Amino acid sequence: LKPNNIPEVIVQRLPLYFRAVELLSRRKVEVINSQDLGAFLKVTPTQIRKDLSYFGHFGKQGKGYSVSRLHKELRSILGLERQWCMALIGVGRLGRAILSYGGFEPQGFKIAACFDTDPKQIGKKVSNCIVQDISELGEKLRQSDIHIAIVAVPQDQAQNVIDSLVKCGIKSILNYAPICARVPKGVNIRDIDPVMALQTLTFHLVNKSEGSSRTRA
Amino acid sequence: LKPNNIPEVIVQRLPLYFRAVELLSRRKVEVINSQDLGAFLKVTPTQIRKDLSYFGHFGKQGKGYSVSRLHKELRSILGLERQWCMALIGVGRLGRAILSYGGFEPQGFKIAACFDTDPKQIGKKVSNCIVQDISELGEKLRQSDIHIAIVAVPQDQAQNVIDSLVKCGIKSILNYAPICARVPKGVNIRDIDPVMALQTLTFHLVNKSEGSSRTRA
Repeated sequence: LKPNNIPEVIVQRLPLYFRAVELLSRRKVEVINSQDLGAFLKVTPTQIRKDLSYFGHFGKQGKGYSVSRLHKELRSILGLERQWCMALIGVGRLGRAILSYGGFEPQGFKIAACFDTDPKQIGKKVSNCIVQDISELGEKLRQSDIHIAIVAVPQDQAQNVIDSLVKCGIKSILNYAPICARVPKGVNIRDIDPVMALQTLTFHLVNKSEGSSRTRA
Repeated sequence: LKPNNIPEVIVQRLPLYFRAVELLSRRKVEVINSQDLGAFLKVTPTQIRKDLSYFGHFGKQGKGYSVSRLHKELRSILGLERQWCMALIGVGRLGRAILSYGGFEPQGFKIAACFDTDPKQIGKKVSNCIVQDISELGEKLRQSDIHIAIVAVPQDQAQNVIDSLVKCGIKSILNYAPICARVPKGVNIRDIDPVMALQTLTFHLVNKSEGSSRTRA
């Protein structure tokens, strides 16, 4: 099966599996079966077996998965065997928080360049990154090994910035602006939006639903 | 149909519809059909009609949806007719960025209290919020109208903090710590995890998939 035929809903769960085997690996767990992994992740064992079967055979029936092998294979499937350089667009309050976030680099994601339109910011060093003029975006990206862009500009500028990134050949965008961004085919965008996550929580609060639910949001 | 029978995957899409009608409303669009709304959101029109049909009849066949009515109804369904007070746990770098984030209050979400374990932080004022001792969490929450907690503590403290919040009766948690948190039935948790979102992007980069995809992450 070609990886581009894998349903997006499965692709979305792969990092969750990767996170789980990372934690299990740190706890020196060597083998885990789909029941225990399912209980850990609140996913059914059938779901896990079905999801992983897209990528070949990881476990022997009744023997469970080798944590180290699953860790290695998921790392490879997700493209995490290399470091990924990213460009950050927008170094306002949100952008600065993203620049100072310590969670990217240990996972192989590095903010290698940052851009803004504000003349007062351009040339300044923020968290070891010199703010560059957004008008130089195309040129700088061409000279670099950057494949991912993070959008942290205000709502009303976000679509324009995303359009520019797409024009520069960026195919992967992590977007923090609360908009319904349009991207052409072949470009992938992920929205980080805590307000939308909160709105699913308030749905459950006002509707007094009894079940528990978990989702990345 | 009772709201607690609504599939979680639909609940997850409701804030997206709400966001869209908010934007359309600001652009003075009065009526939108499921085709145009679908094109706007990159969701099929059938999906939209099916999702919204869970909540009654919003549009007339062939006439489209009234944007103002859809806006009002989704606001009510999602429980957004009131302000929601939240507690923030952890006022380190990430917690401070969350406190200073300007996107919560306009949407009716207010950080009304913040807590930390660090004696150097306790008593200090951060973004108009006085840092309180986490040992007083239970007492303070009982005296307040707080129904949602935001977890912004380091990875190794997160599960303990989540357990304490659950003990204090909190049923809704927005979690920024990169862990697979365990919560009992009846408690809803949403993880905000940019690294997992990035890992679905790198999957597509290494597997050169052609389609475009969008997901909140």
